Amino acid sequence: MTQDCIFCRIVAGEVPSFTIAEDAHSLAFMDINPANTGHVLVVPKEHAANIFEVSPSALAATASTAQRVAKAVQEVVAPAGLNLLQANGPGAAQSVQHFHLHVLPRRFGDDLPMNWPLRPGDRDAIAALAERLKAALA
Amino acid sequence: MTQDCIFCRIVAGEVPSFTIAEDAHSLAFMDINPANTGHVLVVPKEHAANIFEVSPSALAATASTAQRVAKAVQEVVAPAGLNLLQANGPGAAQSVQHFHLHVLPRRFGDDLPMNWPLRPGDRDAIAALAERLKAALA
Repeated sequence: MTQDCIFCRIVAGEVPSFTIAEDAHSLAFMDINPANTGHVLVVPKEHAANIFEVSPSALAATASTAQRVAKAVQEVVAPAGLNLLQANGPGAAQSVQHFHLHVLPRRFGDDLPMNWPLRPGDRDAIAALAERLKAALA
Repeated sequence: MTQDCIFCRIVAGEVPSFTIAEDAHSLAFMDINPANTGHVLVVPKEHAANIFEVSPSALAATASTAQRVAKAVQEVVAPAGLNLLQANGPGAAQSVQHFHLHVLPRRFGDDLPMNWPLRPGDRDAIAALAERLKAALA
């Protein structure tokens, strides 16, 4: 754990999150700045800044949880498309220096840029959707 | 193998590609419509349309190869950032219906949209870069 890392603090339960799935090595929680409805982040529990530093086992666990989450998002949100996306470095606008996979539902015509602007979502709507995703994942 | 799938045909060696890495379960080759210099695709050898269908072992192998490729691209191309990206469904503009991970170098100010337009790259430049990436991966 890295004390000044917000995702390490979420993993440790020191910072609240809308967590929807967890296993021994990874955690999935709602992005509170969703680019679209149903935007989820999946992180390895062990700290690693990016794809260059993440351990093979942490990468595999995170990818596997992301797949489970993607299926749940597809079932519950039924988007027109879905991206898995992961960002490294300033040119990719990586905003938290702890490896994370975005499970990102897409709408036709959403015109999302790769480096989308961060805008807080509606907390009540995110909390309600988290419960539905958690149920789909159970 | 699915006969009408271009990526299955690349895996089978029936269609030429600028392949830079391979293991028992995955293959990495240059995107011939690069969004930026050094754009690589990583695919599982077994056919699966998307994240919903890919087997856990094929997903793990593809993610692992993508990590190796990302390190090589970072070393050889030294971009300002790098994304891993994977698209499912028409809303995400998935263009080939065989699961693939994009290893996508980023430039400051490239203003890339999530659904970037496909434009053929310079074949000679792609071939030369493939050789450098292959050497870095060897």
